[in-house]
Amino acid sequence: MSGERSSLDGMFYPSSIAVVGASNKEGKIGNSIMKSLDREYGGDIYPINLDEKKILDYEAFSSLLEIDSDVDLAVIAVPAPVVPDVVKECGEAGIKNIIIVSAGFRESGKADLEEQIKEHDDRYDLNIIGPNCLGILNPEVGLDTIFNPPEKQARPGPGSIAFLSQSGATGAAIMDWFSEEDIGISKFVSYGNRVDVDEADLLDYLSEDPETDFIAYYIEGVKDGRRFLEAAKKCDKPIMVLKSGRTKAGASAASSHTASLAGKDAVYEGAFKEAEILRVSTLRELFNISKAISRQPLAEGEDIAIVTNGGGVGVMAADSLMDIGLDLADFTEETAQRFEAAVEEGKIPSTASLENPVDIVGDADPARYEEALKIVVEDDNVDSILVVLLFQSPMLGQGAIDVVDSMQGYDKPVIAVAPGGVHSDHLADELEERGIPVYQTSEEGVEALCGLTYCGVR
Amino acid sequence: MSGERSSLDGMFYPSSIAVVGASNKEGKIGNSIMKSLDREYGGDIYPINLDEKKILDYEAFSSLLEIDSDVDLAVIAVPAPVVPDVVKECGEAGIKNIIIVSAGFRESGKADLEEQIKEHDDRYDLNIIGPNCLGILNPEVGLDTIFNPPEKQARPGPGSIAFLSQSGATGAAIMDWFSEEDIGISKFVSYGNRVDVDEADLLDYLSEDPETDFIAYYIEGVKDGRRFLEAAKKCDKPIMVLKSGRTKAGASAASSHTASLAGKDAVYEGAFKEAEILRVSTLRELFNISKAISRQPLAEGEDIAIVTNGGGVGVMAADSLMDIGLDLADFTEETAQRFEAAVEEGKIPSTASLENPVDIVGDADPARYEEALKIVVEDDNVDSILVVLLFQSPMLGQGAIDVVDSMQGYDKPVIAVAPGGVHSDHLADELEERGIPVYQTSEEGVEALCGLTYCGVR
Repeated sequence: MSGERSSLDGMFYPSSIAVVGASNKEGKIGNSIMKSLDREYGGDIYPINLDEKKILDYEAFSSLLEIDSDVDLAVIAVPAPVVPDVVKECGEAGIKNIIIVSAGFRESGKADLEEQIKEHDDRYDLNIIGPNCLGILNPEVGLDTIFNPPEKQARPGPGSIAFLSQSGATGAAIMDWFSEEDIGISKFVSYGNRVDVDEADLLDYLSEDPETDFIAYYIEGVKDGRRFLEAAKKCDKPIMVLKSGRTKAGASAASSHTASLAGKDAVYEGAFKEAEILRVSTLRELFNISKAISRQPLAEGEDIAIVTNGGGVGVMAADSLMDIGLDLADFTEETAQRFEAAVEEGKIPSTASLENPVDIVGDADPARYEEALKIVVEDDNVDSILVVLLFQSPMLGQGAIDVVDSMQGYDKPVIAVAPGGVHSDHLADELEERGIPVYQTSEEGVEALCGLTYCGVR
Repeated sequence: MSGERSSLDGMFYPSSIAVVGASNKEGKIGNSIMKSLDREYGGDIYPINLDEKKILDYEAFSSLLEIDSDVDLAVIAVPAPVVPDVVKECGEAGIKNIIIVSAGFRESGKADLEEQIKEHDDRYDLNIIGPNCLGILNPEVGLDTIFNPPEKQARPGPGSIAFLSQSGATGAAIMDWFSEEDIGISKFVSYGNRVDVDEADLLDYLSEDPETDFIAYYIEGVKDGRRFLEAAKKCDKPIMVLKSGRTKAGASAASSHTASLAGKDAVYEGAFKEAEILRVSTLRELFNISKAISRQPLAEGEDIAIVTNGGGVGVMAADSLMDIGLDLADFTEETAQRFEAAVEEGKIPSTASLENPVDIVGDADPARYEEALKIVVEDDNVDSILVVLLFQSPMLGQGAIDVVDSMQGYDKPVIAVAPGGVHSDHLADELEERGIPVYQTSEEGVEALCGLTYCGVR
């Protein structure tokens, strides 16, 4: 299409979908997509197949032009050489939104096929996602065009994070991991070769999407840097980007993978800073931050309090905070007095270290955690809490879960670090069920707090 | 003790152990230690208790001097003020090896108690580990002085990694995680305040220990930097150190925790380089490398081949390799020809990217993995292999496990990266059972290869 893009509502909230290349044959992509749609989508489904009368339980049509109702979205899964003609047919049939799942275009040296698609796009004013992509998920309405079978790749439930991926396989892996960690999404888009709808278009749409609070990307190269930067500056929701191809070897691999010009990394770095985009460098960082965002309130400032029953993990957490540019909170005078009183009353032992990080030492029980956590969470200089629980201690069990959980009443982010093994996994799991994100190492907990802080104070 | 240290064999391979402060009371440290020894240790156990006649099923003594057999090791778990007298009694009874578990010394402002211990040490020429520590594990002989109950903290089985920790809680967490990941150890030592036996003494001993191939430390501050550096230079086994307190805030926390002078980090950094010590910055890196070391052969060079069914993870892995200073292997001419032939024969599709990282694209099945992996593992320029398995693909299942497993016949390290969710965890688990370490993200796989490469080429 050209000029201002019409809304993508028909893409993400279609009342009816046609699947071109739908099939009854197990293992065919057009069969998997039909099954994915059949599972939860509530709108009308029109399979297109030249030979079959029925696909699954749906009446099949031999052409898009035969359907006599309005179709909001066409999903195309036919061989690449046929795709331009199907796009043209969409235009003729008045179908404005298209997802091209098929591969075999620019990434295989067939840029000419993409040029033909663009011509039809310009003529009919279409919205096209792909080609060479997985398509989209919108769990709110059961929309699922992903051909990976659910027994191989799980789908996340509804939530407030939008995730957009240039790479289909990376996107699939992330959705799988999000599902395992119960991180909900508002929208997922694998946009592949982005012949039409690109990173900036999606950002414009999601900026206005009431279901989306947070937007995350996996990107190897941005199609139109200037447009993306403008869209990011206009967007008042937090944006996180994992931009790979940072190094010479990575950039060269990206050029083989998505034919992306990875570009000078310093240019990306500068642009991300300018647009206040949070840049992360690893998938784990992306997961860790997404988990925190999906469970905890945002931080209102950069000052963090650490409470631990193991000094070593406190030391490592302090190192990680400094590495990442966050601050250890300076406690108020009142906090110092409250700690002093707690020691006098025997609620906290004199061997504890009551500076930040607060080390309530190895024999800390839930009551001591409660005492210390209450004092720091009520300190006005403290914006968020990182609580370390070394569950190997015989003093810590179920009671500690209740205490940490109760700190959620203060509307400050609470993150837990529990470097535990097989005997404490159930305690970490229960904390997670109560809404506290748990990380195995201090640097991961700090990464998560960095995300909550960035999103809260930007 | 003074002068040259006598062997620590009696510490790690005692024929008999006295437990001072042994108790029948549940929850007491002296009770937990007795139970830990009772589980697997095969030598004689002599509980010392003023009142009881029996502790568990062992005859109890009211004093060390009452035991009329030789005792190789005394474990002391009595209140701090009494400890110096018990150390003296050890000297009088001819017990040369002592572990002081009790806390309440220098870390609580009671340096004078440590001075008294040192005087007895000098007089009787003892080996003392602690105070303020967890003690030691030697799974080879069932030696276990750890008071954390096994239902809270698991113990690793026998293996070739020695792990030494200044922090007890961090050491316990690491042992717990090692157990969960089936990483075996030769020795574990939590050495605490190291009034006598220090980092360098342990290094000297483990350098000569036939059960130990690899030595890893968690350190906040080294007692005698020059001695440690000399010991490290003399040691011809690979050494890995996680030295925390790297930053201002971390150093300050370390000073509260173990009263360690963290020291200028640049000085440590320089010394570690000089002694060819592998420095890691996070617990996860330490785990990741330990897991690889415990399962795979060492790399004979720095050149790595990546084979992936997802281009994006290949790009991220290439970035991580560059970040960490490793190299992507330049394939030989023969490899290029073999790949060309495989494409001609239809075994690898023309859409694959056959430069390194090798991207055999999303629909790769086990046969295609086998073809590609065989070509790269047989390339003389390739020292180790990182194979990425996006198990979300419908093409990958059990067959992929067998193929990757079969690459272990070449005596080059093979590491797998599988960013998977709940539906592929069992496949990752099975690969691990076959001896292939599996990591969830590319940067972790690269960390692991970095460890195998450092250890192989130093």
